[in-house]
Amino acid sequence: MKRTKIKDLLNATDFGQQVTVKGWVRTFRNNQFIAINDGSSINNIQAVVDFTSTDESLLKRLTTGAAVSVTGELVESLGKGQRVEIKVGQLEILGDCDAEKYPLQPKKHSLEFLREIAHLRFRTNTFNAVFKVRNALAFAIHKFFNEQGFVYMHSPIITGSDAEGAGEMFRVTTIDLDNIPRNEDGSVNYKEDFFGKSTNLTVSGQLEGELAALAFGEIYTFGPTFRAENSNTTRHLAEFWMIEPEMAFYDLNDNMDLAESLLKYVIRYALDNCGDELEFLKGRLQEEEKLKPQNERSDLDLISKLNFCLENSFERITYTEAINILKSSKPNQKKQFKYLIEDWGADLQSEHERYLVEKHFKKPVILTDYPADIKAFYMKQNDADDQGRNTVRAMDILFPGIGEIVGGSQREEVLEKLERRMTEMHIPVEEMSWFLDTRRFGSVPHSGFGLGFERLVLFVTGMTNIRDVIPFPRTPKNAEF
Amino acid sequence: MKRTKIKDLLNATDFGQQVTVKGWVRTFRNNQFIAINDGSSINNIQAVVDFTSTDESLLKRLTTGAAVSVTGELVESLGKGQRVEIKVGQLEILGDCDAEKYPLQPKKHSLEFLREIAHLRFRTNTFNAVFKVRNALAFAIHKFFNEQGFVYMHSPIITGSDAEGAGEMFRVTTIDLDNIPRNEDGSVNYKEDFFGKSTNLTVSGQLEGELAALAFGEIYTFGPTFRAENSNTTRHLAEFWMIEPEMAFYDLNDNMDLAESLLKYVIRYALDNCGDELEFLKGRLQEEEKLKPQNERSDLDLISKLNFCLENSFERITYTEAINILKSSKPNQKKQFKYLIEDWGADLQSEHERYLVEKHFKKPVILTDYPADIKAFYMKQNDADDQGRNTVRAMDILFPGIGEIVGGSQREEVLEKLERRMTEMHIPVEEMSWFLDTRRFGSVPHSGFGLGFERLVLFVTGMTNIRDVIPFPRTPKNAEF
Repeated sequence: MKRTKIKDLLNATDFGQQVTVKGWVRTFRNNQFIAINDGSSINNIQAVVDFTSTDESLLKRLTTGAAVSVTGELVESLGKGQRVEIKVGQLEILGDCDAEKYPLQPKKHSLEFLREIAHLRFRTNTFNAVFKVRNALAFAIHKFFNEQGFVYMHSPIITGSDAEGAGEMFRVTTIDLDNIPRNEDGSVNYKEDFFGKSTNLTVSGQLEGELAALAFGEIYTFGPTFRAENSNTTRHLAEFWMIEPEMAFYDLNDNMDLAESLLKYVIRYALDNCGDELEFLKGRLQEEEKLKPQNERSDLDLISKLNFCLENSFERITYTEAINILKSSKPNQKKQFKYLIEDWGADLQSEHERYLVEKHFKKPVILTDYPADIKAFYMKQNDADDQGRNTVRAMDILFPGIGEIVGGSQREEVLEKLERRMTEMHIPVEEMSWFLDTRRFGSVPHSGFGLGFERLVLFVTGMTNIRDVIPFPRTPKNAEF
Repeated sequence: MKRTKIKDLLNATDFGQQVTVKGWVRTFRNNQFIAINDGSSINNIQAVVDFTSTDESLLKRLTTGAAVSVTGELVESLGKGQRVEIKVGQLEILGDCDAEKYPLQPKKHSLEFLREIAHLRFRTNTFNAVFKVRNALAFAIHKFFNEQGFVYMHSPIITGSDAEGAGEMFRVTTIDLDNIPRNEDGSVNYKEDFFGKSTNLTVSGQLEGELAALAFGEIYTFGPTFRAENSNTTRHLAEFWMIEPEMAFYDLNDNMDLAESLLKYVIRYALDNCGDELEFLKGRLQEEEKLKPQNERSDLDLISKLNFCLENSFERITYTEAINILKSSKPNQKKQFKYLIEDWGADLQSEHERYLVEKHFKKPVILTDYPADIKAFYMKQNDADDQGRNTVRAMDILFPGIGEIVGGSQREEVLEKLERRMTEMHIPVEEMSWFLDTRRFGSVPHSGFGLGFERLVLFVTGMTNIRDVIPFPRTPKNAEF
């Protein structure tokens, strides 16, 4: 008999029908009630066994984690907590699960412990919810761009170029480390490497995205990117997924409008499509926050926070305005910031971003027009201000609890200005000739941004460690599974 | 004035309105007719300039590739080949394009030449069409799985495991090749590497996909995979994208049904959403085929071939049946095959696959139940047949002109059988303990397959070299851009 997904049965109303369910035992109570989960829903279905007529040796095998196939009548449940249940006719064990050895037991496990058994944590409610939301957000991103006629573009993963002009990268090589080919001067002979030159994992698909945008008009990438930075934080991964739209004929305002509407669209999609999961995650977060001192708890629960984001326009201010706010802020006056804000030009730290978002504006903030010296070479240069200060048409979106979730800019489209800036910043102009061709042949104003996918998932799920929102996190000294 | 996309204008009927179009000049004829393309459509819009009232120096800058902004009245076109055109009021050059230096001219360029300027080839009709179809296919894949409740799962790119148990891999490292840390015995000390161990680029997300499927029920991956194979063919890339669904409770028939319906769904989606592009690509292919001898040309044009795939069930036969067909086939009898089929157990070559698909059945073929010795360790073992031959529950889908487009199997779910096979094939059982946990704790019958995305795009676009269906191909000695 064909199996029915539990998700569908939980909403069924045609009682009396015979159904087959296949899934894993979550709990088995009173020698009678099996809670079965098949992954289709965060919720289990209850199957009721008649233990008087069931072989005892079979009942003993109904341990947490065992795989079962159950066929029986779908009936209205009299018990509390569920609307429907299955009156078991046939019961088959598909795969046993030795309770002595199985690491997942029907009790609360710490996130740290579950991280060590990342291959099994998918089987918990928390990670069922997290990865369902992640799935919904990924689909919503594709749906948003598809509706707007953007072209999804796969930028290369292995690359000889470094988009940021900096950033630590992973080498990709087939060179035998026990037998390195060398040039006469002793340097490594990369001509012998697979690609005939030195190659790395990409840190961004932006430059290739610009090439495509200046042909298709509007494109986006959605792929893995890499940073070989030795940072062991709750916000950094060595391998993470990024969405990078790039749009011809967009100025900085168009760019901000697009980013804001994208974020709102995907949050709304999650609210509309992941009700059960977000409800569960809201409860999880509330439990977690109970362990915190009162003043560190959020004012809003998870779902209220998401709705709040939808209902309010993101605050748009310039870097210069932000510096003025921060300079005269209480924590700056009282020297509570670790890095005090004194002069224009300072790079903003996480504490400053959080102050602006969480204390001052109490909503998402878009900071624009950063000092040129703390931003990348490709950003459009503003005219110097009345004090002779140089800024660029950058924009960063800061989210509560997350910090920077989007970083973008209008791009410098004037060849001479771009070349001058590259020279100043020691970016090899010659090597990047292909990139500069976009400014040489039919250059147009254009803009783009990068959205860190895991940071978005963090925000929407209310999880607090980025390692808990990607299936198999890669961090310094850790590439398990 | 806000720009309107050319795609929308080409379908507009409200003549007389003022519109602004921004895009690139494809051609400028008779000092009067500008063909403008903005990437939103493969088709151009015609803008008509009144050269008597336009500055001559401006007209001279209307060269192929120049970026322009044009505002004027949308009018019904009297000329042939277009329904609407713009009567230019205002004309602005956004970015010049020096005709002497611009590599793309309004003439036919060879695909080989365009591959060398892959950063500009997006601007041609052929590559506009190819990458629009690629975009549509990618979206259709997500849509298909989303509608069926599959969870999209990002399997890791950097990995310490090798899914196939073989396959040449790229090393990922931050070790300084000029200063390699070594153990006392002289071997490389990977504890000093970024992840504290030797890591590679993934060759498949399948094993991690199985972990997720045995929790969520049905999952799929869609991400880049890598092979460091030194094969310079029209069908191989070192970096390519793969879709890998993995489903709990699916046997081999369910697996084949899913693969067939996925392929038909996405082909239908392309036909429904990329009419103009496929029409163009059909013409391109016809031109290309004219250069071939009559007997090498296709019977069907591109669109007929796609429809043919939709209208016919894929032929499902076992490897053993295929061998019998091939053994008694004309090219085998007449010794026209390069590799003659003599004995059961032979691996099928491209010539044999093509014979089955293109000559014998004349439609897509699914081959099942291959000899165990030519397939991977994780495939479900059949009972030995009456002649004692061992086969596995594998299935490969063969497409005309492409060969293998899908490879999959039911997975061996019995722990002891899987361990035995791994030992026979020298796969380290201990290292793969996390994978074997799926068979240890609540194992269930399950299946999955891999679909090579670029091969799918090749098939649907009718292109013949895989380097022409991915933006920036990575092949031996080639990682440009």
